[in-house]
Amino acid sequence: MTRNYALTVAYDGTRYSGWERKPGRATIQGKLEDVLSRFTGQPVKVIGAGRTDAGVHALAMTANVHLETALSPDALRRELNRYLPADIAVTALRPASDRFHARYNAAGKTYRYTCYCGDGKPVFTRSYVYCLNEAPNVTEMRRAAAYLTGQHDFRSFCGNPRMKKSTVRTVDVISVEQAGDTLTFTFHGDGFLQHMVRILVGTLLEVGWGKRSPETMPELLAARCRAEAGFTAPAQGLCLVQVEYQ
Amino acid sequence: MTRNYALTVAYDGTRYSGWERKPGRATIQGKLEDVLSRFTGQPVKVIGAGRTDAGVHALAMTANVHLETALSPDALRRELNRYLPADIAVTALRPASDRFHARYNAAGKTYRYTCYCGDGKPVFTRSYVYCLNEAPNVTEMRRAAAYLTGQHDFRSFCGNPRMKKSTVRTVDVISVEQAGDTLTFTFHGDGFLQHMVRILVGTLLEVGWGKRSPETMPELLAARCRAEAGFTAPAQGLCLVQVEYQ
Repeated sequence: MTRNYALTVAYDGTRYSGWERKPGRATIQGKLEDVLSRFTGQPVKVIGAGRTDAGVHALAMTANVHLETALSPDALRRELNRYLPADIAVTALRPASDRFHARYNAAGKTYRYTCYCGDGKPVFTRSYVYCLNEAPNVTEMRRAAAYLTGQHDFRSFCGNPRMKKSTVRTVDVISVEQAGDTLTFTFHGDGFLQHMVRILVGTLLEVGWGKRSPETMPELLAARCRAEAGFTAPAQGLCLVQVEYQ
Repeated sequence: MTRNYALTVAYDGTRYSGWERKPGRATIQGKLEDVLSRFTGQPVKVIGAGRTDAGVHALAMTANVHLETALSPDALRRELNRYLPADIAVTALRPASDRFHARYNAAGKTYRYTCYCGDGKPVFTRSYVYCLNEAPNVTEMRRAAAYLTGQHDFRSFCGNPRMKKSTVRTVDVISVEQAGDTLTFTFHGDGFLQHMVRILVGTLLEVGWGKRSPETMPELLAARCRAEAGFTAPAQGLCLVQVEYQ
């Protein structure tokens, strides 16, 4: 009998072309489906809460999968971890209701973006941070973040020019924290458009470097034009930290 | 005019055939010498406090180098970091007395060995830990460590069968700490033989797994025979943490 399982997956995205299965490319969804298909002898479809870009990491992506297996959830998790590569781990696996859908039911997501702004080199965390040549002004970035927090049309921050659906999202937390040489941006919202977190970070950094003023954020939102926003910060600094369900 | 400089170097040893320069191999000493030689237009010899094995990491290897340069120490450090690969960083660089020799003057070293003993997978630290399939008994390992602490002939723990010099060393700290799924061994001593820390860890793990008793440590030391000791724990868990000078 087929059963629905909810999975929590951690991965180092460095070697992967993102979450979503793509022919001829190494992807997280692809690796999970390949291993699960080998276990069950049948094609398996893994549904993720979202699609992370190439090079983006996750501490806790949530996914679900309908499977027929004789293994207990704990044994299935261990077997999965044994056959998955060292940079992908299933950190939790439990039976879910048949109707649980990791993407449709996702109510909130937390992303973290990490920058290194010291004058050394972060040898041991180099794959997980974006190294800045110039330290940005945190106070100015926080002022800009306050304008961007809330429910807005984020079309200016959408990397997909052919996006046809609504680009309105609610982002209730945009925090900027500095601890020593590490600068951390945290975003929490009901959903994020393609590249949205990375474009928000790039725009906030431009504010921090004095290239934009915080007061221009409302007109930037109103422009609904990607070209008006800042650069797309590199993928390696981004990590999906949590997905919430009601 | 040539001047002597003391360097502190951090590196992720994963991609390297160890510290020591070897023809046709990527090594830390080799990378440092290549970059410094390009700066000065002359052959440069970098003297390290010791030779770490292939795959071993360092938070703070100390080295010295005699150089002629117009750059200030801080500018030299920045230039070095710019041209060195992302997994090698010079974290400090300062002028030293002409007589300072990173190897001969080293008075003490601290090594850390890290194991993961949870039932998950350490996705983000996978290159810096040794994953154990079975959690060892920490109390038994600490009892064995107490027998090994002090001044002893460590020939049984020497990976070089042709070692002609004295194999007597003083190791004044061998600690075993568990925090969650992470098991950390810390060693401090006046010097360590080839593979000595890794063989000590392998032997302590065998004690922790019940394959040896702590009480057999004195006879193991007395045997002065590598074959009597435990396995050589993998390089990736080992990190040179500090080198002390008087």
